[in-house]
Amino acid sequence: MTASERPRVGVIGLGSMGMGMATSLVGAGFETWGCDLREQARQAFAQAGGRAVATPAAMAAEVEVVLIVVVNAEQTREVLFGDDGLVPGLATDSVVLSCATCAPEAVQALGAELAAHRIALLDAPISGGSAKAAQGQLTIMASGGSVLFERLEGVLDAIAAKVFRLGDELGQGSQVKLVNQLLAGVHIAAAAEAMAYGIRGGCDPHTLFEVITQSAGNSWMFENRVPHILAGDYTPHSAVDIFVKDLGIVHDTAHRDKFPLPLTAQALSQFTLASAQGLGREDDAAVIKVYPGVDLPGAAANDGED
Amino acid sequence: MTASERPRVGVIGLGSMGMGMATSLVGAGFETWGCDLREQARQAFAQAGGRAVATPAAMAAEVEVVLIVVVNAEQTREVLFGDDGLVPGLATDSVVLSCATCAPEAVQALGAELAAHRIALLDAPISGGSAKAAQGQLTIMASGGSVLFERLEGVLDAIAAKVFRLGDELGQGSQVKLVNQLLAGVHIAAAAEAMAYGIRGGCDPHTLFEVITQSAGNSWMFENRVPHILAGDYTPHSAVDIFVKDLGIVHDTAHRDKFPLPLTAQALSQFTLASAQGLGREDDAAVIKVYPGVDLPGAAANDGED
Repeated sequence: MTASERPRVGVIGLGSMGMGMATSLVGAGFETWGCDLREQARQAFAQAGGRAVATPAAMAAEVEVVLIVVVNAEQTREVLFGDDGLVPGLATDSVVLSCATCAPEAVQALGAELAAHRIALLDAPISGGSAKAAQGQLTIMASGGSVLFERLEGVLDAIAAKVFRLGDELGQGSQVKLVNQLLAGVHIAAAAEAMAYGIRGGCDPHTLFEVITQSAGNSWMFENRVPHILAGDYTPHSAVDIFVKDLGIVHDTAHRDKFPLPLTAQALSQFTLASAQGLGREDDAAVIKVYPGVDLPGAAANDGED
Repeated sequence: MTASERPRVGVIGLGSMGMGMATSLVGAGFETWGCDLREQARQAFAQAGGRAVATPAAMAAEVEVVLIVVVNAEQTREVLFGDDGLVPGLATDSVVLSCATCAPEAVQALGAELAAHRIALLDAPISGGSAKAAQGQLTIMASGGSVLFERLEGVLDAIAAKVFRLGDELGQGSQVKLVNQLLAGVHIAAAAEAMAYGIRGGCDPHTLFEVITQSAGNSWMFENRVPHILAGDYTPHSAVDIFVKDLGIVHDTAHRDKFPLPLTAQALSQFTLASAQGLGREDDAAVIKVYPGVDLPGAAANDGED
């Protein structure tokens, strides 16, 4: 059972989340393969002790457990079934973890297709940001067969501080993740709106942050993102375009069911406006820049860089 | 200086906030007068050791410090200058605390008019809810002359756990309070939207609460209000109509300055819709009832009571 306890693991997508997960696995002693199209990411991972390859197919025969850490369901499908994809080379009884934010139905469909190849799927969207990914301290909102959780215990321990087991059915993890993304996105947009309104009204932004974080208006996102605004530093921890994508998924699932989400739609519109203004790759706190006539901290320095 | 250290205090408005503040003052040993139009509130306050009167004029000559805990600037003005109002009977050098949520300009105007009568005003909006009011543990977002803070130290200690001193100018406290209310209102509406969406998507509402409160989607309001939804108990701690009012003030101040607040406008619209559906006096978490086709916890019991 040694192979099951310490399986060879692959991570597809060495971005801000995947790289941290892959290096956490290396640090925990797993033989870890990492795949990314970008040469720079592969070099960084190889230097961190991992085995770096350029295509999913190149690691397929080497690994028993694969974490797919790409941006959406379409990319997850491409990694599995596309050119140079994983599935043809992957051994039966391998396990794939779908870590991207996806519609529940998309994960269920992937699970059915993988089952036809006798490959198991765990619905395993992640939360926590790049810093927690690097520390192996992510939150995972997971669903799937309980036997999978047993097989993956060591892998999950290496990357996550908290694993929520949200049921046996694929899609249940993704549904909870979408609820979390709805709130996270609305709260970032609300934090931006509130800071913009307060600064326009003559409040000192640092005082505002101090008061709100100790009051009923606080949120996890307010506390986490407003410091970026105060520092005038929009280096992306998580980019505006991530919420264009994630709130878009939330919006689409609700729209399909004819279920109204007015606040979500409005927050999505604000991130979309920010992206259209060229801010898509800035930190998501940059959504505050769509509010007109606000004298933001550090604005002069940022304007100089633009 | 004994009178200044332990002044006779009046509280106008013995509602869910004012009653708690008034009884906290009684408990701290202040001779406290309370005013309310409702006989029942006056009886309750008298039983708690206070001196209860039916009009502001009836306490004006008895007190040196008056806390006005009504719903808005118009009512505050009526308490001061209307029929049976405070001002004609109030001694010069008395201090009035304006505790309602008001536009900054409204507080500034009241301050100027009171100054003409040699009465001082502290801009002192409160936050924290009825439970904290009863415990003398409110948060106060205050602005005004520093000499007032010294004179009122004992009074503020009796009612508040935290007093933010937000500057010398009237309106600065109210501006920060409006930012807090913007966030609080948007977060309640977002919590309702997220829970409605998740329940519609098949999530167990209790599990959803457990996961979100440990994730990046959390907010102070999510954690505080969603338990009302889980219990199916919409007994008002703070009513839907309070946010129709407070987000209305935020909206009006921004609209006047031609400043767009799209998330705020959408949240205001949700509370207004809830109020129009007859939910105005229910707990503000009842804004979730405007989402269609959601199987809310305890819904059967509630339907029976309607």
